[in-house]
Amino acid sequence: MHKAKRSTVVVDPQVHSIFNYSAQVAYQKKGGLLADVRGNPSLDGLGALGDIGWYCARGILWAYDYELPLSVTAHPGTTYNPLGVITSCGATLLYSHHRTATFTTSFRTGHVMKLVVVGEQGSLECDDFVLPAECERGGFKVVSETRWKDVLAGWERKEEEHEVTLQVPQEAEMVREFARLVTGIRDGSGKVEPVWAEISRKTQVLLDAVKESIENGLKTIDISV
Amino acid sequence: MHKAKRSTVVVDPQVHSIFNYSAQVAYQKKGGLLADVRGNPSLDGLGALGDIGWYCARGILWAYDYELPLSVTAHPGTTYNPLGVITSCGATLLYSHHRTATFTTSFRTGHVMKLVVVGEQGSLECDDFVLPAECERGGFKVVSETRWKDVLAGWERKEEEHEVTLQVPQEAEMVREFARLVTGIRDGSGKVEPVWAEISRKTQVLLDAVKESIENGLKTIDISV
Repeated sequence: MHKAKRSTVVVDPQVHSIFNYSAQVAYQKKGGLLADVRGNPSLDGLGALGDIGWYCARGILWAYDYELPLSVTAHPGTTYNPLGVITSCGATLLYSHHRTATFTTSFRTGHVMKLVVVGEQGSLECDDFVLPAECERGGFKVVSETRWKDVLAGWERKEEEHEVTLQVPQEAEMVREFARLVTGIRDGSGKVEPVWAEISRKTQVLLDAVKESIENGLKTIDISV
Repeated sequence: MHKAKRSTVVVDPQVHSIFNYSAQVAYQKKGGLLADVRGNPSLDGLGALGDIGWYCARGILWAYDYELPLSVTAHPGTTYNPLGVITSCGATLLYSHHRTATFTTSFRTGHVMKLVVVGEQGSLECDDFVLPAECERGGFKVVSETRWKDVLAGWERKEEEHEVTLQVPQEAEMVREFARLVTGIRDGSGKVEPVWAEISRKTQVLLDAVKESIENGLKTIDISV
């Protein structure tokens, strides 16, 4: 419908990330105490943000090649359990060149895991990006070549479903990788790979910024790299 | 994995709404002027918010039975064309009882139309909720009965695809409905149906609140019903 020349196209990539599940354990008491790590401020003070917001933040970092945003601003509507631990929250991340990301995380709905990466021609989407619904396979959808049809008769989209089959569950892959790293250092064939510490630190930086924003009236928190 | 009793379940419904398309016309000039209504402040001053954010707001209202939220807070990252018309923005809406909604709208990516309604057991999702990709059918997906499998072997979800087949495109349905209303008033068999004005007004109230929030440093705007 709109035949813009390639050179005039203005594109601001977006990433949207949601991970919710019903973590009733964050509310349940044993002997008058909130026993689970997720709901106890002296165990994991970050609550839903630390438990599952972690994966939302990591998903966004992954999509942006582990680049940190310029700033993080929490959304209104944070909820807490009776001990003041976060049970749901959200945020917008701003990157350079008008690139953005949003995330939402909650202990207070059924399972939703959704990562949507939006680009010039369409989007990439994964509905179980944290833990595959089936442990032997994972998949994602690519929507491309989107454009209006004539006279509002709908719109074109090319949809491709991609499936990755796993020999072992991803947790086993993780343990294998960890064992490979440790073995390499032990027998001298390998060395410390800083990427793991780097992406963990960046994820933590994002979560800390979200919490700081929440605790300061949704103030925008600048990220210093 | 977590066998919470039904009575202890804490649920906060969420609605997430995205509508983007590449409206390069909002940037293109003819004879030095931005000619298209979408990019010209003296034609439609609301830009992307008025053109496509309208449908995001309406989708949220639909999901909440046309209830207005308590407040609206814009997200950071609003973009503008050279004449100061909004070309992308987003917001969080807060409802009573911790119900929330978010929306994102942009003239600056490929087509994405996504409405996700999140509840206790799963979610409802539509990927072309504004204009069906194919004019003769529309569809949505319901994910339900979500829960962890044992020992992190994935998670259960029941997925149902629903399809609605149309005899005529939805625009023709709209014109038919409009003609029915006019005919009813003309020949005395019908009367004014206030629902149409009411849901249009509520949609406009939301858009105006987003704009007011953007223009006031992302201030939370209370909605008076």
